Amino acid sequence: MLDMLRIAQIAPLVESVPPKFYGGTERVVAYLTDALVKLGHQITLFASGDSITKARLVSVTPTSLRLSNCVDYMAGNILQLQEVMDRAHEFDLLHFHTDYLHFPVTRLSLKKTLTTLHGRLDIPELKPLYEKFTDIPVISISNTQRRPLPMANWVSTVYHGLPTDLYQAGKGEGDYVVFLGRFSPEKRADRAIEIARLAGVKIKIAAKVDKADERYFEKEIRHLLDLPHVEYLQEVGESEKGPLLANAKALLFPIDWPEPFGMVLIEALACGTPVIAYNHGSVPEIIEHGKTGFIVNNIEKAAEALQNIHLISREECRATFEKKYSDIVMAKNYVRLYERSLRKQPERNFYSTPAYRK
Amino acid sequence: MLDMLRIAQIAPLVESVPPKFYGGTERVVAYLTDALVKLGHQITLFASGDSITKARLVSVTPTSLRLSNCVDYMAGNILQLQEVMDRAHEFDLLHFHTDYLHFPVTRLSLKKTLTTLHGRLDIPELKPLYEKFTDIPVISISNTQRRPLPMANWVSTVYHGLPTDLYQAGKGEGDYVVFLGRFSPEKRADRAIEIARLAGVKIKIAAKVDKADERYFEKEIRHLLDLPHVEYLQEVGESEKGPLLANAKALLFPIDWPEPFGMVLIEALACGTPVIAYNHGSVPEIIEHGKTGFIVNNIEKAAEALQNIHLISREECRATFEKKYSDIVMAKNYVRLYERSLRKQPERNFYSTPAYRK
Repeated sequence: MLDMLRIAQIAPLVESVPPKFYGGTERVVAYLTDALVKLGHQITLFASGDSITKARLVSVTPTSLRLSNCVDYMAGNILQLQEVMDRAHEFDLLHFHTDYLHFPVTRLSLKKTLTTLHGRLDIPELKPLYEKFTDIPVISISNTQRRPLPMANWVSTVYHGLPTDLYQAGKGEGDYVVFLGRFSPEKRADRAIEIARLAGVKIKIAAKVDKADERYFEKEIRHLLDLPHVEYLQEVGESEKGPLLANAKALLFPIDWPEPFGMVLIEALACGTPVIAYNHGSVPEIIEHGKTGFIVNNIEKAAEALQNIHLISREECRATFEKKYSDIVMAKNYVRLYERSLRKQPERNFYSTPAYRK
Repeated sequence: MLDMLRIAQIAPLVESVPPKFYGGTERVVAYLTDALVKLGHQITLFASGDSITKARLVSVTPTSLRLSNCVDYMAGNILQLQEVMDRAHEFDLLHFHTDYLHFPVTRLSLKKTLTTLHGRLDIPELKPLYEKFTDIPVISISNTQRRPLPMANWVSTVYHGLPTDLYQAGKGEGDYVVFLGRFSPEKRADRAIEIARLAGVKIKIAAKVDKADERYFEKEIRHLLDLPHVEYLQEVGESEKGPLLANAKALLFPIDWPEPFGMVLIEALACGTPVIAYNHGSVPEIIEHGKTGFIVNNIEKAAEALQNIHLISREECRATFEKKYSDIVMAKNYVRLYERSLRKQPERNFYSTPAYRK
């Protein structure tokens, strides 16, 4: 058991940490970093200069790439990677959150790195990449996320966590259900609206439209928002999201894709709000059927589940969140992996690497 | 003086080598690679699997990324970088044509790498990047290209070259001028059309419209193509380009941006066709005013130059091409740099690199 660890957290630069707007990865990195500091570790966060953190911040760009309107997104990322490597000797371990960009560099220093893969991995061109980098230790954010890449060197799964004071548990007395997130074909807001209609309950929808989804939104969704049982709130901020969830009878999560980790699921649990979700991606790992919500496979079952939502204890939802999905739990899970990694893996000998043989 | 060199040419994956369609970098890499083979060197080309080369081909992707409709463009590039490093010991030197992606990796093995920068460098976010990587030896494709990044470790300029049998010199008896390339705001097809009108001469336009330039094309260009002195040929292939240039009185090149190297300039010279160009980017390095064309600063001067185009010797244009811009000249220039690089630069000691100190 080591005491204080010196850890570098390497975040993407596209958004600040935490993100000003949307940005799932940057948000989790923010929570993790602050929680590690709270646990007494010496953390350096590599992130854009407009990031806000309890850790030491090292930045190669003054603002997030999205806000700086830059032409070349890769330049900042390569610059940050080199900055990390220049300072690598300051740390016990480098924890990357930047996909695979650093693999050819950090391969030379295996002992000192862990990488959390935050994205979806069912993209065909990732397969040959991870077949090449079978030695790079990677962490999944759900077990299901690993499925397309069984050949990767999976170290463990660590679920995302949230600060426990971010959301307050509520009583769900608002007499509505809620859909939160983005309007995209995989998120299936249309299903959520139909489920609410079948169950005869109001639905509040707080969601944004990404540029890529504008056509889909216009064609498939916009007319549904005029239905009498639908209230459309546009995109809501963190402060509105809490009460919106806490007063909801349930969160509807009728997704159509293998979402690696549904952040909104644990946001709902933090508010004591049960979830009615389709059985895709991380859903069966996060939601316990009959305990913190219902897992369904069609609209009728979802509407039926909604009739039975009073069977779910909201206290149990919040308790599950605190036990499994707090920022401190996440940080402790990572610390365990850092320590295991520092104990177990031998340092690689540079001179034995074919690339550097003369 | 070394004899046979074992060189890796590392091409971008976005297009095949040579490119099926447009792709300036991949085209030059194709010419360079084949010319180096012709000079007796042992060349390995890292490029997409649909590339065609006289060298040994190593591919991590079956087709170019553009043709494979891939979602994640970076995956193939990182995979190729690792493939190169895994085989680095097979080569005397690695010659990269992939911008800066490899810098954090190859920094550890400086002796063995050279990088030709093919793109425009006046992008703000490149400045801090090259301030970091002042030790990576880079080659410019014109002297003017270096201007935004004086801090980079510039080794030399090597101008692009073409196979001497690719284009035949012609007599320019077609009684028209020509504009070749893309319709984009920086290329200024509108200026070319106005120059021809002022000079009272027909203009043939062979150019394509990139997706990004569609709005510009519709608004600023399309109506000009209906003018009586304009003949619009859409995009032409290599085999049509030769006669089109060879029969033209002149190529008009009234650009509005610091183009690092205008390939069409040397294509024109290869056809014996003089160039009337605006004084931007590589123009004054490639075109000699009064000898291989005229360098002008406004439409009136350009029209006047067109009246005097008979003063330029078409034989001189072709001779200049053969002397300075053939593929073999380019390859010999690179070989000189390879040899100098192998003689001069000491191998870096990995253990002295801070990143790898324990």
